[in-house]
Amino acid sequence: MQPIRYGMIGGGQGAFIGGVHRTAAAIAGNWSLVAGAFSSTPEKSRASGAEIGVASDRTYGSWAEMLERESALPADQRIEVVSIVTPNHMHAAPAIAAMEAGFDVIIDKPLAHSLEAAQAIADAATRTGRRIAVTHTYTGYPLVKQARDLVTSGKFGKVRRVAVKYTQDWLSRAADLEGNKQAAWRVDPAQSGDAGAFGDIGTHAANLVEFITGERITSICAELTMLPGRRIDDDGAALFRLSGGGKGTLTASQVCVGDINDLAISVYCDEAGLHWRQEEPNTMRIGYRDKPTEIWHAGANRAYLSPEILAIQRTPSGHPEGYLEAFANIYHAFGAQLRGGAAPASEPGYATMADTLAGMKFIAASLESSRLGAVWVNL
Amino acid sequence: MQPIRYGMIGGGQGAFIGGVHRTAAAIAGNWSLVAGAFSSTPEKSRASGAEIGVASDRTYGSWAEMLERESALPADQRIEVVSIVTPNHMHAAPAIAAMEAGFDVIIDKPLAHSLEAAQAIADAATRTGRRIAVTHTYTGYPLVKQARDLVTSGKFGKVRRVAVKYTQDWLSRAADLEGNKQAAWRVDPAQSGDAGAFGDIGTHAANLVEFITGERITSICAELTMLPGRRIDDDGAALFRLSGGGKGTLTASQVCVGDINDLAISVYCDEAGLHWRQEEPNTMRIGYRDKPTEIWHAGANRAYLSPEILAIQRTPSGHPEGYLEAFANIYHAFGAQLRGGAAPASEPGYATMADTLAGMKFIAASLESSRLGAVWVNL
Amino acid sequence: MQPIRYGMIGGGQGAFIGGVHRTAAAIAGNWSLVAGAFSSTPEKSRASGAEIGVASDRTYGSWAEMLERESALPADQRIEVVSIVTPNHMHAAPAIAAMEAGFDVIIDKPLAHSLEAAQAIADAATRTGRRIAVTHTYTGYPLVKQARDLVTSGKFGKVRRVAVKYTQDWLSRAADLEGNKQAAWRVDPAQSGDAGAFGDIGTHAANLVEFITGERITSICAELTMLPGRRIDDDGAALFRLSGGGKGTLTASQVCVGDINDLAISVYCDEAGLHWRQEEPNTMRIGYRDKPTEIWHAGANRAYLSPEILAIQRTPSGHPEGYLEAFANIYHAFGAQLRGGAAPASEPGYATMADTLAGMKFIAASLESSRLGAVWVNL
Amino acid sequence: MQPIRYGMIGGGQGAFIGGVHRTAAAIAGNWSLVAGAFSSTPEKSRASGAEIGVASDRTYGSWAEMLERESALPADQRIEVVSIVTPNHMHAAPAIAAMEAGFDVIIDKPLAHSLEAAQAIADAATRTGRRIAVTHTYTGYPLVKQARDLVTSGKFGKVRRVAVKYTQDWLSRAADLEGNKQAAWRVDPAQSGDAGAFGDIGTHAANLVEFITGERITSICAELTMLPGRRIDDDGAALFRLSGGGKGTLTASQVCVGDINDLAISVYCDEAGLHWRQEEPNTMRIGYRDKPTEIWHAGANRAYLSPEILAIQRTPSGHPEGYLEAFANIYHAFGAQLRGGAAPASEPGYATMADTLAGMKFIAASLESSRLGAVWVNL
Repeated sequence: MQPIRYGMIGGGQGAFIGGVHRTAAAIAGNWSLVAGAFSSTPEKSRASGAEIGVASDRTYGSWAEMLERESALPADQRIEVVSIVTPNHMHAAPAIAAMEAGFDVIIDKPLAHSLEAAQAIADAATRTGRRIAVTHTYTGYPLVKQARDLVTSGKFGKVRRVAVKYTQDWLSRAADLEGNKQAAWRVDPAQSGDAGAFGDIGTHAANLVEFITGERITSICAELTMLPGRRIDDDGAALFRLSGGGKGTLTASQVCVGDINDLAISVYCDEAGLHWRQEEPNTMRIGYRDKPTEIWHAGANRAYLSPEILAIQRTPSGHPEGYLEAFANIYHAFGAQLRGGAAPASEPGYATMADTLAGMKFIAASLESSRLGAVWVNL
Repeated sequence: MQPIRYGMIGGGQGAFIGGVHRTAAAIAGNWSLVAGAFSSTPEKSRASGAEIGVASDRTYGSWAEMLERESALPADQRIEVVSIVTPNHMHAAPAIAAMEAGFDVIIDKPLAHSLEAAQAIADAATRTGRRIAVTHTYTGYPLVKQARDLVTSGKFGKVRRVAVKYTQDWLSRAADLEGNKQAAWRVDPAQSGDAGAFGDIGTHAANLVEFITGERITSICAELTMLPGRRIDDDGAALFRLSGGGKGTLTASQVCVGDINDLAISVYCDEAGLHWRQEEPNTMRIGYRDKPTEIWHAGANRAYLSPEILAIQRTPSGHPEGYLEAFANIYHAFGAQLRGGAAPASEPGYATMADTLAGMKFIAASLESSRLGAVWVNL
Repeated sequence: MQPIRYGMIGGGQGAFIGGVHRTAAAIAGNWSLVAGAFSSTPEKSRASGAEIGVASDRTYGSWAEMLERESALPADQRIEVVSIVTPNHMHAAPAIAAMEAGFDVIIDKPLAHSLEAAQAIADAATRTGRRIAVTHTYTGYPLVKQARDLVTSGKFGKVRRVAVKYTQDWLSRAADLEGNKQAAWRVDPAQSGDAGAFGDIGTHAANLVEFITGERITSICAELTMLPGRRIDDDGAALFRLSGGGKGTLTASQVCVGDINDLAISVYCDEAGLHWRQEEPNTMRIGYRDKPTEIWHAGANRAYLSPEILAIQRTPSGHPEGYLEAFANIYHAFGAQLRGGAAPASEPGYATMADTLAGMKFIAASLESSRLGAVWVNL
Repeated sequence: MQPIRYGMIGGGQGAFIGGVHRTAAAIAGNWSLVAGAFSSTPEKSRASGAEIGVASDRTYGSWAEMLERESALPADQRIEVVSIVTPNHMHAAPAIAAMEAGFDVIIDKPLAHSLEAAQAIADAATRTGRRIAVTHTYTGYPLVKQARDLVTSGKFGKVRRVAVKYTQDWLSRAADLEGNKQAAWRVDPAQSGDAGAFGDIGTHAANLVEFITGERITSICAELTMLPGRRIDDDGAALFRLSGGGKGTLTASQVCVGDINDLAISVYCDEAGLHWRQEEPNTMRIGYRDKPTEIWHAGANRAYLSPEILAIQRTPSGHPEGYLEAFANIYHAFGAQLRGGAAPASEPGYATMADTLAGMKFIAASLESSRLGAVWVNL
């Protein structure tokens, strides 16, 4: 199979997530980075491109230039997909332009910095018929997919209660906003949207809930807070209700000291409770009433895993996979489908427009709930 | 030191918590069970007394009889303390009568089935000058006391966020209410109060929050639910606010499948996050920004523990203590103080009237909040 | 049931294990301490007895006096059992004398400081027909009994490999021998026997292997070491062979820094591997080829446990039991059998003479193997 | 920096480790696969090359052809390094030929199927002056490097005792040798050498011991076994002695049911004990006498890690890295040094000839020890 030729927007020197996308695509194996507009200034873009190894004649000074000049290349040479890894507020313009220029798009989450911008992207996808994948990384983990299979199959009954948390500590001190490129844009409403922790990581938590349960969060009661002197939330918690009647709690914080990247979820159904934690992603715990608790292990020689889960694992059992491999699974699935492969039976392997719009509504409803004093708001 | 002579009300054949109190008192070493009114009928009381080894002439047919006849014994023979282990709705009458008859009281939590009854007990204590200890077991664990020392010392800064859960699964099925003596009274509003899981175990969770932080829960937004056909809550979650300005989440459930007795708390302060879990009570985890996560171990040769924590441990380091030893710590502390010993510097070693009234208000506010649609209610 | 009246030899002020025996007997519920010769001098014995609450007229100045004067009491008042908690080299004399005086005996492990002394005790038991229980504490844990049930049932096939370790760090520094009563006699060959760590805790490890597998260690290749300046081993490891053909490794050390009381065992059979660790004794892990790893939980509402395991647990599921409860299970089982109850189907509930003599041979063979340069020695 | 151009020998369709090397090189980012002789037949080699995306004119029918034709290309186009991923018995011939043709070599472990073949490779390296890196994967993990830094710095004192195990279960049943390409050659003495589990995974365990301690295993007493009907060991354990005077135990097995890829090591020094386990490679535990146990976390914002450890991590703290990233670290280090970068202060980042020859001696000594009845053999 011919690899997917892609161009990247954003991800220049000093950025973090662009490098993750490139490595993920390399691990996926079915992608090839051939072009890029890596920075907001032509000079920095070219310096970044040279460092990464993209040909200088396909390292562009702006995304507009990239779209225009790539479109002019022969069909078998020009990029097929644009990967967008800019700050949140700079997602919509290049995404819409790329689709209108005939390119498919893979885009870092959250889809945009506002619900309006996200809807505009979704509308453009519908209008142009182009495909979009959003990289909600954590749904790329094999055992998260296995959890979804188990819960949505109904074999454990209905979902009763979900507890999800995503807690970090990298903004736990006032000084953390100084001299930190990631922090700077993430806590600036103009760039990141009005939401801080709830937008940056709360959406991951909400997405994980909806992915595993196959349900939507329908209403939420959230209280967001922040350290003195900050403009957007760095911490908060919420009660929520699910479309299937279950209840849940969600905590998202960047000031919970000692928690590094602690995304953890528990899904309690009528007959079992599932537990998964991102920092140790290769095991999943399932508790029962009448039989011993089970530890499920990722890895290719454990026959109790679903065949489609076994198929996406790259290492033999017991050789841990991590964040980059989860990210690679998203690229691989999108790439395989662009080349005409069928999507997996249960889900496409990446977040869809519907998933990400649900996430945007989660953010908007959380902010509104908190602004009104932590009252219930429907999504 | 002469052991404390005590008489028990409740705890006859088929009951659970009475036996725990008796074993705890035996482990404590400074108590001696010499009398009892173990059941609601004289015959069953006598049968229970014989089985336990209480002299037949001091096994009474009713608690009123016990109070009357023990009062008539010489001062150096009669009971000094009454231990009350009846269902919640039968706490107040014997407790008040015992105090009025001149006995001190140790009483199983929650103090009573209603805030009014609890207040009546507290008023009687004030009126009579008798002492009362309430057995909020989990505060008897050495590492819980150590956590309180660390948090209330202020060395980690202020409390930012607390996450506490107490989840079980023994009522996860409709059939669980049939043929189960513990279940029967716990889910009957007339015996247990209007609260189910929030009264039975949610109070333990709330008490643990207040004990470790040294603060009070000031307002709560709770949503309680129950399985179809049940009359009182078996599951629920809440957001809450602490008197020091911190925020929290609390979950209490008896229908979370696979969770056995999963009381777990995380307390995040400005400079550290503490984590303790009842099912593995001999370790405590503390996370930091700038240094490795620490695992603190209970046990007498670990010099980093507070001297008063080291003093209450019965086994050498690495020989685990459990629930009965935690319970025994409560009896031991109350007994030592009744014999004239000084209370530990930081707390008496058992729940006081103020602590338990706070717990009763927690239950009442949770119920009201949920009844009004999960709105904020002040305690 | 009338409690077993017992008298204690040893366990005076400053001793450790005597208090453990007394608390264990109290938790067991079917024992009553009525006499004692607690120390090597009459004055200290009486002071200890007063502190413990034993009547002064039954607190004796020597064990010989106790045996003589108790024998003279009416049969329904005199002690029935002698509990021996003296240092190892002082086990044999009182044990033999007690049996010859008609008393049954419960004795702290190891049975004696030498194989000869141990054999003399065993011979006396045979000669007198008295019963002896030895308190190999760790076999008192419910999940250890469950492990034995599973392994000896053969449902997992034959035992292939065992890995057992018992590591501590309380002697890790040269200074640890100064001013420490436990340390002093344990590292003195005259009192403790020629073995240090292998005698004190290696025997626990070996006993655990034989208990769970139902096999005997038949030969061993051991290398023992010690810190400079010490006379007996404080550290060592061994390869061993089991009577059923399996192989194993055993490590026992009191100088493994950071390990508190880390007794841990893995038993690999043809179709499953079981893992149990004393510091978290209420869970057991079982791994398989074709299905998820299982975590078995102690506690009374988990129906997959054997009925006889469920029967000995004192707390509801999820309320942890520990070392004292395990110890109490030994006293309870011995007491029940002395009162005429049937022994459990699979094992009596305590270590027998055969078990403990096997342990003595383990020590002797380990010492000889190491002395000869770590060669294989048969037991 | 220009990527290193490399050609691969072995790693065709159906092989496992070749794909791991290719992905590792892709993650490393400083390597480019431009040629290959992927299989033992030209047809299969070409089919594999096409699938992988290597140009057809540089996919060769044999390694000899590759070496010859690549040597004829211009210096700025031809491969610089040969990556050898064939079965063990086919390492020496291509490795020696490659070096003689002027190429550097990176080679999968173990270096060869016999000590003689390994020595021949080492001699060729000396003779030709070419560089060789051997991929002992597990030393590529950041926290393993951190452990080495801590132990070899001497800050914890001398090494007293090491316990290492590497246990798997993929050969636990007789039928596991049928229809399994990896199993087939690994258990055939002609292809894999005389050692089975001890050669395949025992060497990883031994290498890890020597890497972390900075010492050599000087003598060993090993007992190897195998299931009925097998020709080489699938299970075994050993006592060993270290050059610094410490002692150790080592277990290697492919028949320990339930253990997936359980490489785990404990290193006890005078003042601390370190513990690391491959299946959860992003944490390391360190125990002390006088302060709480520490959990060290991999990841770039934990300032207690060594700067050189922080430098090689690809993901932010708490985003787990795994086996492929560890493997990539080896490629990256070798590549960086080939391009003229300095080796890290403490070690080159990959196993050297000295390391691997030590490993070959470990295998030979283990086999001899076991053959003689588990006696001590010097390395």
